[in-house]
Amino acid sequence: MAEYKSDIQIAQEAEIRPIKEVAETLGLDDEQLIPYGHYMAKVDVTKIQDLPEKAKLILVTAINPTPAGEGKTTTSVGLADGLNRIGKKTVLALREPSLGPVFGVKGGAAGGGYAQVIPMENINLHFTGDFHAIGAANNLLAAMLDNHIKQGNELNIDPRRITWKRVVDMNDRQLRSVVDGLGGVANGMPRQDGFDITVASEIMAVFCLATSIEDLKQRLGRIVVGYTYDREPVTAHDLKAEGAMTALLKDAISPNLVQTLEHNPAFVHGGPFANIAHGCNSVSATKAALKLGDYVVTEAGFGADLGAEKFCDIKCRLAGLEPDACVIVATVRALKHHGGVAKADLNEENLAALEAGLPNLLQHVDNMKNVYGLPVVVAINAFPTDTKAELDLVEQKCKELGVNVALSEVWARGGEGGEALAREVVRLCEEPHEFHFSYETDGTLEEEIEAIAKRIYHADGVDFTPAAKRDIKQLTEQGFDHMPVCMAKTQYSFSDDQSLLGAPRDFRVTVRNVKVSAGAGFVVALTGDIMTMPGLPKRPAAEKIDVDAEGKISGLF
Amino acid sequence: MAEYKSDIQIAQEAEIRPIKEVAETLGLDDEQLIPYGHYMAKVDVTKIQDLPEKAKLILVTAINPTPAGEGKTTTSVGLADGLNRIGKKTVLALREPSLGPVFGVKGGAAGGGYAQVIPMENINLHFTGDFHAIGAANNLLAAMLDNHIKQGNELNIDPRRITWKRVVDMNDRQLRSVVDGLGGVANGMPRQDGFDITVASEIMAVFCLATSIEDLKQRLGRIVVGYTYDREPVTAHDLKAEGAMTALLKDAISPNLVQTLEHNPAFVHGGPFANIAHGCNSVSATKAALKLGDYVVTEAGFGADLGAEKFCDIKCRLAGLEPDACVIVATVRALKHHGGVAKADLNEENLAALEAGLPNLLQHVDNMKNVYGLPVVVAINAFPTDTKAELDLVEQKCKELGVNVALSEVWARGGEGGEALAREVVRLCEEPHEFHFSYETDGTLEEEIEAIAKRIYHADGVDFTPAAKRDIKQLTEQGFDHMPVCMAKTQYSFSDDQSLLGAPRDFRVTVRNVKVSAGAGFVVALTGDIMTMPGLPKRPAAEKIDVDAEGKISGLF
Repeated sequence: MAEYKSDIQIAQEAEIRPIKEVAETLGLDDEQLIPYGHYMAKVDVTKIQDLPEKAKLILVTAINPTPAGEGKTTTSVGLADGLNRIGKKTVLALREPSLGPVFGVKGGAAGGGYAQVIPMENINLHFTGDFHAIGAANNLLAAMLDNHIKQGNELNIDPRRITWKRVVDMNDRQLRSVVDGLGGVANGMPRQDGFDITVASEIMAVFCLATSIEDLKQRLGRIVVGYTYDREPVTAHDLKAEGAMTALLKDAISPNLVQTLEHNPAFVHGGPFANIAHGCNSVSATKAALKLGDYVVTEAGFGADLGAEKFCDIKCRLAGLEPDACVIVATVRALKHHGGVAKADLNEENLAALEAGLPNLLQHVDNMKNVYGLPVVVAINAFPTDTKAELDLVEQKCKELGVNVALSEVWARGGEGGEALAREVVRLCEEPHEFHFSYETDGTLEEEIEAIAKRIYHADGVDFTPAAKRDIKQLTEQGFDHMPVCMAKTQYSFSDDQSLLGAPRDFRVTVRNVKVSAGAGFVVALTGDIMTMPGLPKRPAAEKIDVDAEGKISGLF
Repeated sequence: MAEYKSDIQIAQEAEIRPIKEVAETLGLDDEQLIPYGHYMAKVDVTKIQDLPEKAKLILVTAINPTPAGEGKTTTSVGLADGLNRIGKKTVLALREPSLGPVFGVKGGAAGGGYAQVIPMENINLHFTGDFHAIGAANNLLAAMLDNHIKQGNELNIDPRRITWKRVVDMNDRQLRSVVDGLGGVANGMPRQDGFDITVASEIMAVFCLATSIEDLKQRLGRIVVGYTYDREPVTAHDLKAEGAMTALLKDAISPNLVQTLEHNPAFVHGGPFANIAHGCNSVSATKAALKLGDYVVTEAGFGADLGAEKFCDIKCRLAGLEPDACVIVATVRALKHHGGVAKADLNEENLAALEAGLPNLLQHVDNMKNVYGLPVVVAINAFPTDTKAELDLVEQKCKELGVNVALSEVWARGGEGGEALAREVVRLCEEPHEFHFSYETDGTLEEEIEAIAKRIYHADGVDFTPAAKRDIKQLTEQGFDHMPVCMAKTQYSFSDDQSLLGAPRDFRVTVRNVKVSAGAGFVVALTGDIMTMPGLPKRPAAEKIDVDAEGKISGLF
């Protein structure tokens, strides 16, 4: 890849416009902008609250991720630039990157090549401080909780049943499992504890679903932090914490506006994990985009079985949104990986492996089209090693399901490389369709989980461990049963076994525990060990990051 | 106090000017400003680097703090407003508040009454994100350190000799002492550990002393994080961490500009603890203020034995600064407390107690005047309960040392109440004087520590524990001996025993440990147990903080 420029080189060489000018294209004036430097701003959404949410909403999702990489954010950015090029006023609504992956394996997360949002260094580092605010609110609640116990424990909280963890926005495995409160009476109550990465905090999910400051405060107050010795839930409101937490989040909840390399507007706001949380950018950003554009391109985390499922069943349900079209991103390389090819051999044409891997894509297509009722296009994120025979095979198989394929060359060519995809998306947005959820919330939690497992994962059924059954019984008694379910599952497979690639059959899903995120408004069903605190690799990306004497950053991907 | 408005009421009712207008009064244009909202900005100091540091530098310090409160920041703000009122172009250079105390006992820390810096809610909460950036850089280093050990430990780091702690910007005693890395091989190496509050991090001290991005990076690289099994120091540079840490701090190191209630410019930047660090705002902010104003008012933490000593012996020495005058803040109430009166009885006139407590003030006056060679004024922060006889007694005793007293009524009357103090300060700045350090750094570390203890604390001498002697021997062998010493000592007494009020005599100081802050460029001498992670009180200030539906915050002090 020596002949290619790195993402940060492209981003730094690009012309960048004052954010005021970008905002003007949306009809926003200075009064509605809260500047963070000259190229980033928060938008005061209270000043646009009466505008109708008129735009078409396009969801970008993907096949199950592989080590080969899919390029969902890159495709989203390029599609938005492509739509703007063909004359459609389009606004992006993306997630903010977490510092953890930036310093770990992944590097930056603001698109790639000629399809990026800028200023990429700022977006990838502290941006406007939202994640720090979320971390501080999370850790204030934790400190108030342990302080309450230390100061007499009027609420009778059982230190063994505390479910609230502290967070850092860092890949730091050393903190996964700790014992704290050591060192004697003055230092608190010794107990088993652990840290999550900030994006895994329930505050992040709350932040992304809140529709106003009042709604935010009420959601924060409902957060369950643990249980009493009598097994009654203890909330943030019981600890009188929600006011101060809201104060910490007050500015952060306004969505952030930046620009693509082609100067099109992009909201980049919120970024919950797509495993234990719902994996979508904030409702406030999506709604702002729907008011200000004619088309909105948004994305959901991981593959469509996790991200798109939660986008539809959680975010759209709770926020009253309806997508108009769905883009499923795949690469020929990743599909060959699903067909059993090792990473080192992905550059070779291999039609047999591609055919074996295609069911992964086709099942996602079928789910989005027939379960959710959405018009679908498959976007093949082009690589120089893709052959015509391979691309033809993908196209033919998708056609059999009545779905078109568009080649996306946005990484190499920016919006121009996304025009074909853009035209197909515009066509799809005019197609009549009827959006459905994959389940309703008037049944039992078991029924919700089984519906997702059978209809989306294509499992034979669900096994609930005795612990999960106890959890469901308790949550039902406490009135937390008529909420949507957030599945915590490996992103690598339709199943709960990450080694089962493609479109596995004849498997059952095991639910080990079920817990409530009462502030977010969903119940989390845990399958397998879900990583809520990543670790750094042997050679962290951080080792390569540098700043020169003029303040220019290098080594971000 | 029901008839008084709270600080936040006064701040919210005040007119606030766009920060651009405040910057214009300093000759700064848009190009030199990086806005954070409409009322806060960072100043790009590279664009003013060629201006001479022409202003007079006024240090505001205080007697040893008491539960009665002294009002050092309030006096600094009011003095600056007073100077501007009498026609002297004055710029403030203050420390940023930490979130920990905001949610703990103290409430806000942006001045009080009619002598505040605004927007006070932002300044007291996340401000421009500097402390979050410092926390992230600190915790990235920690994660890379533990990751190094987990990934094979090429550097041969002894997990029992790690000195680098993680931080949170929160009063959270539960984290003081922990065991982390639990849960098996995949989670790291179990070890004893602990967290500090962010302001106690060496990164904070480095941040405040760095003069450029290059200097920052080099200092970060020199930070000692622990020792090998062979007792050799391991640095951040050895872990290849300083580049990424600098990237995290790149924007934060530009000083923040805000305004006083009277619209005068105030740099509020950096805020290291004044016990284990040097307790002053950033060198970059102080130097920017010296270039842009004719008078600069700055403050140092705690009493003059800690804050002013370190301001002179560390900050001025390392940054090449020279103060022109010194203001020592006292209250009649606090002096009576030093004379042995309980907090509940401080409102009663008590000349005997005042006389007994005055030696605390007089010894600080003597130190600043005769050890450091500075022109001194005592500012009595006025309380309604002060009697004329009490004020006369203070004035008479100070006169005997050749020092004037000015009554400061800035809390109640803003800059107008600071004019008398301002006039005396202007007079002092014209007095011939010769600034000295209290010790030179060409001797041994023992000699430096003894000089501070004898000349500033008026101790009979210093006892070094066997551990401290070993530390000094090792640091001397490693070449860390010709650095200034940062004394970690209780702020409540001249001595290392917090119960010895007034101006104690016939005591010795015990140094228990000595460690290097190689990045900051000083050696820390620890006397007694120094709190680097505060706890929350029984009723945390956080419980009273709230936000209404329009986003208006209440309950900050």
